Amino acid sequence: MLIARVVGSAVSTIKAEQLRGLKLLIVRETTTDDELVGAPLVAIDGVGAGEGELVLVARGSAARQTPETADRPVDAIIMAILDSLEVDGAVSFRKS
Amino acid sequence: MLIARVVGSAVSTIKAEQLRGLKLLIVRETTTDDELVGAPLVAIDGVGAGEGELVLVARGSAARQTPETADRPVDAIIMAILDSLEVDGAVSFRKS
Amino acid sequence: MLIARVVGSAVSTIKAEQLRGLKLLIVRETTTDDELVGAPLVAIDGVGAGEGELVLVARGSAARQTPETADRPVDAIIMAILDSLEVDGAVSFRKS
Amino acid sequence: MLIARVVGSAVSTIKAEQLRGLKLLIVRETTTDDELVGAPLVAIDGVGAGEGELVLVARGSAARQTPETADRPVDAIIMAILDSLEVDGAVSFRKS
Amino acid sequence: MLIARVVGSAVSTIKAEQLRGLKLLIVRETTTDDELVGAPLVAIDGVGAGEGELVLVARGSAARQTPETADRPVDAIIMAILDSLEVDGAVSFRKS
Repeated sequence: MLIARVVGSAVSTIKAEQLRGLKLLIVRETTTDDELVGAPLVAIDGVGAGEGELVLVARGSAARQTPETADRPVDAIIMAILDSLEVDGAVSFRKS
Repeated sequence: MLIARVVGSAVSTIKAEQLRGLKLLIVRETTTDDELVGAPLVAIDGVGAGEGELVLVARGSAARQTPETADRPVDAIIMAILDSLEVDGAVSFRKS
Repeated sequence: MLIARVVGSAVSTIKAEQLRGLKLLIVRETTTDDELVGAPLVAIDGVGAGEGELVLVARGSAARQTPETADRPVDAIIMAILDSLEVDGAVSFRKS
Repeated sequence: MLIARVVGSAVSTIKAEQLRGLKLLIVRETTTDDELVGAPLVAIDGVGAGEGELVLVARGSAARQTPETADRPVDAIIMAILDSLEVDGAVSFRKS
Repeated sequence: MLIARVVGSAVSTIKAEQLRGLKLLIVRETTTDDELVGAPLVAIDGVGAGEGELVLVARGSAARQTPETADRPVDAIIMAILDSLEVDGAVSFRKS
């Protein structure tokens, strides 16, 4: 899964019927030190993530493995908000 | 999902039978400020998108999760037309 | 789907049983002006494409959505031969 | 499958219900000489891997092909701990 | 499918139960002139390929479309040994 930060949101009225009710958040991949490195992509918010939070994003058919997204034309979902990351024995990120 | 702009269209008469009736649009990934950054790829138009519009593109098996594309040999679909994008608290794109 | 040109073919006698009878073509991604940009990859020929033709290639599980490739260990199929591409209102490619 | 080294772990309390009980490890792709080359990604620990170990990571829907991860929104799993790698006839890595 | 050369093998004793009996080979992507260009990845040997041979590798869920790999946590399989490659009308590779 991708380590990413929520950097914003997207609004769309003209969309596939199956997307109604799904929140669209913009995320960007980060390092384990919470540094932005990736291009923006849009993921379905599966856990009530807020702007600025470090999250895990599952992509591909994994994005359809929740009750809210089953059988929907989506390929990325935020499925966890990160409390902390530990690398080489040291905490590299801790949710403030 | 990919943030992308519709930049054109593709026409094909010799194609897999299952593609009949599906509109082929050319899209390119953009930044959240609507700047083109990606290579062109072809996606099925799932929502009646027009040239120049900023859209969301779902890829992989997600592209087959609509009635029109179920079980068809397609791996990318336009599933939303974007009204606006908000990044770091500011609107970075609004549909004119 | 990838815009690509057929640049050659591959022959294999020792292969998974399920590949018998499937034609293996070498394709490379191109720009919308038919300029080669991508690394070579091998795709199943689903529409009788010829060398030099500009085609659409679907990848991943999409490659198994035709009667000939269902349940076979393949991840790329040529599913359309392109007649023309139009970008920013102008024809960028037309099949000769 | 990706050759990767376990470099750390991730903790998350607010997550998709289906992730409860799954251990989240941070891995980075390596060369066959155990040199780190890839960006960090998070994978489900399927085999009890420890920090510093060289492992194999399967991605995409493959990550859901174990009893613990079936139907869960995950796209990467550690499915083997490597004992050794042999390249061009010489051992390039052996587990200490 | 990826054109790749078998460059070695991987050994693992601690692994997902479903991997027992599957041979793990290290492959690297090549050009159509058999020049190594890709990073090493591990694929299941589906056809008895040997070190140095040029092969085709199918990735993603395609890797599970053979009797030996169905429902296993694997995302890459060697499904053909290449006899020859022909590009722009000339043979660019022939198995010695």
